This record gives sequence, structure tokens and C-alpha cells, in this order.
Amino acid sequence: MRRLLLVSTSTTHGTGYLDHCADEARARFEGCGRVLFVPYALHDRDGYAEKARERFATMGLGLDALHTALDPHEAVAEARGFFIGGGNTFRLLKTLQDLGVVDAIRRRCLEDGVPYMGTSAGSNVATRSIHTTNDMPIVWPSTLDALGLVPFNLNPHYLDPDPGSTHMGETRETRIREFHEEHDVPVLGLREGAMLKVDGDRAAVVGERGGRLFRRGADAVEVAPGESVDFLLA
Amino acid sequence: MRRLLLVSTSTTHGTGYLDHCADEARARFEGCGRVLFVPYALHDRDGYAEKARERFATMGLGLDALHTALDPHEAVAEARGFFIGGGNTFRLLKTLQDLGVVDAIRRRCLEDGVPYMGTSAGSNVATRSIHTTNDMPIVWPSTLDALGLVPFNLNPHYLDPDPGSTHMGETRETRIREFHEEHDVPVLGLREGAMLKVDGDRAAVVGERGGRLFRRGADAVEVAPGESVDFLLA
Repeated sequence: MRRLLLVSTSTTHGTGYLDHCADEARARFEGCGRVLFVPYALHDRDGYAEKARERFATMGLGLDALHTALDPHEAVAEARGFFIGGGNTFRLLKTLQDLGVVDAIRRRCLEDGVPYMGTSAGSNVATRSIHTTNDMPIVWPSTLDALGLVPFNLNPHYLDPDPGSTHMGETRETRIREFHEEHDVPVLGLREGAMLKVDGDRAAVVGERGGRLFRRGADAVEVAPGESVDFLLA
Repeated sequence: MRRLLLVSTSTTHGTGYLDHCADEARARFEGCGRVLFVPYALHDRDGYAEKARERFATMGLGLDALHTALDPHEAVAEARGFFIGGGNTFRLLKTLQDLGVVDAIRRRCLEDGVPYMGTSAGSNVATRSIHTTNDMPIVWPSTLDALGLVPFNLNPHYLDPDPGSTHMGETRETRIREFHEEHDVPVLGLREGAMLKVDGDRAAVVGERGGRLFRRGADAVEVAPGESVDFLLA
């Protein structure tokens, strides 16, 4: 049974790293003891792992970093929990592909029920594909298909249009609409402070802020904190 | 001799379509009579071509749309000017690749000196690669290598960091720095209102606003309107 916590942003404005999602993270990893951290979205893997390790220690959890594992396949096979951090989604997915661990992480989460937490790029990569990332394509993965732990897409750091803006670049909503000109896959925009919690066939948006759900040919709808989105898993 | 006009945005705040770059466009296409319009960045190709056709008519220029050409290769071979409009950069590049016209457009511009104007995605696709687009990867080109009319990258709609923002997503500068963690290619950010004008081995930023130049391992530098960036072509 899958047990996921897909967080929009690691840090909300005015709070510390993972503060806003610490209670949910602790609950998600209860009984795991240690989690396997995947730092590939950032360039400085050592620094990133150290930052995550210190934060997880305050939650009473140990943390091993995948990039220091002698055998990454063995590390994935033995992981009791996964935490994939944010950064650049293309770099993250490409590195997982290059290591050949995409299928193994998917199986561990879907078949073995290993808890998975992602923030930002780490949430994006958990979904059907990374077609709805906000990031620059600084590297080019072999495919944009991702871990597929849920059958829809996310847009982390979802931003509502700013009516006072003079910027003429596309709004986030316009970009997601462009995705729907090409694909018929729902996209759940998660505002900063929001998370998607998935337990088997149950899913809900939780946190301080909600989400906005986009489907092809339909008006966007609000998803308030606490609201179920089980239907997205059907 | 290449003759390019690479515009950050088709429309600046409070002005009409192509108004802010109309004088430069008219000068760029002087003597062409007609230009070939490439609408593939948007889904509604007919509507896009009509909008561009009306605007070009007010500049005394005829406009043919590539998507209605019986033979796109012949249309490219006979074009007296190219105008590639904005929208989604991935969709634009993929369609050019699928049609097999990337090399032909490049040759026409670099060898035959056919004038080229791009706005936003149409400017991005003129450069070395589209690794520094702001767009969502809604489709998946076979490579991110682009027309290569200049040997560096652009970032259209360049946005300075907003010190008052509470949004925690990466700033544009951070995203370009991530690109430089992976590539050693200069990136010229063009603010809305700015354009890059290239004549052979001469290049300058022109327009109402300037640009910001990012190079690996160096501090970003301002490029004021009117300033030469010839060195980027070397």
C-alpha cells in the first residue's frame, strides 16, 4: 500500500527548512528509524545531505544519502523510507534514470509500501510525469515519465495569477492549459504550504494552504486543505 | 550574413501586439515584401497566423503561414524573411524537428542572410539550445539543440528577483545558475521591452529595457539598451 507525502515546497516564507511539514513527515516515517535521502536535484549533494540529515535528526530519524551508497541498487532495495528533496526536476529524474533505479523505487513504494516523501522536484518526480515542472530543462532525461506513484501530475509552488502584475510571460494557469492542449492528464497545483497525502487509494490535500485542480476541458476547481481527492487515484 | 531580431516579448505591458518592436521589425524586413510566419508555439495556428498577418499588414508586409504551405520545405527554401512567434518553446522546437526544417531554416538565415525575427519562444529557438526557456516541457523534442543562429542562449521575459516576494520557488537567476552547473554557455536574459539585434558579427541589445548577462563562474553583468555584445558571437 503506497504511503506518500508530496510537499509543494520544503520551506514556506518565514519558517525554517521542513518546519511546516515536520509533523506530517514524522507521522509518515513513523517506525522507519532511517530514511534514504535522494539529493540529485541539487548540484551540491554533500551539502544537501548534511542539511537534510540535521533536520531529520531533530525529528528523531536517521538519514542515509543515496549518492554515498557503495551500491545504489542495494540502498534502494533496503530502504525503509525515501525522502527526495527539491531542486531541478530534470536533473533529478535524469540522474535516477542514469543510475537505473526508477523502477526499483517505484516497486518499493507501490509493492512494499515503503513510505515516500518528496518536496518540490521530489514531489514532481513521484507523479506520472514531469511535464508540469516549473524548472528549466538544464539537462534532458531520456523520457519525462517519472516514478508514477500516482496516475496524475502535480505542479508544486503553484502560484495564482497576480492581477497587479505587469509581467507579460505566461501565468502558471496558462502553462498548465498548454499542457492540456497536448495531454489528458489531471494536474493538481499545490500552493506553497500545501501537501498531498496518499494512503493506498485515499488521497487528500493537507497543510496550511490548498490546491487547484486542472483537467482538460473543464474549469479549474479549488481543493481546500483537508479535502479528499481520492477520485484522482481511480 | 545573419540578420536577426530576437525580441523578449511580443507585447509589453500597456501596448499592443508587436508595438514596441514595430520600428525594428520594419527595418529588419525592409525590402522583403513578404515574410514566412511560423505559428507552432501556439495550439491555434490559424488564429495566430491571422493575428500576425493583420499586424504585419500595418507594417506594409505580407505574411504567409508555414502550417498552411503545401510543401513546408519549399516554403522555407523560398522564404524572404522568417517570423517565429512565441508560445511554448518545446512545442515549437518539436514541430520544427518533426517537419524536418531545422537545418533548412538555419542555412537560409546563416548562408543566405534571410532576415529572422523571433518573439519569446521564437527568440529562444533561434539560439544554441532551449535549455534556458521558461516554458513547461509539455512535449518532448528529440533534442534541445535549436537553430543555432547565435552560439549562446537567451532567457526571454527575464525577471529580476522581487525582494518583496514571499514565493519560495527559484528566482530566474537561480534557475540560470543551475544551468551553469551543467553547461558552460553564456545566457543573455532579455527583460520585456528588450531585443537582441544581430548583423553578421555585430550584436547589440536594443529597446526600452536592457538585459542581464550570465556566464559560468562569473558575476552577472548588466547590458544597457544600445550596448554591444559582439563578444558573445566570437
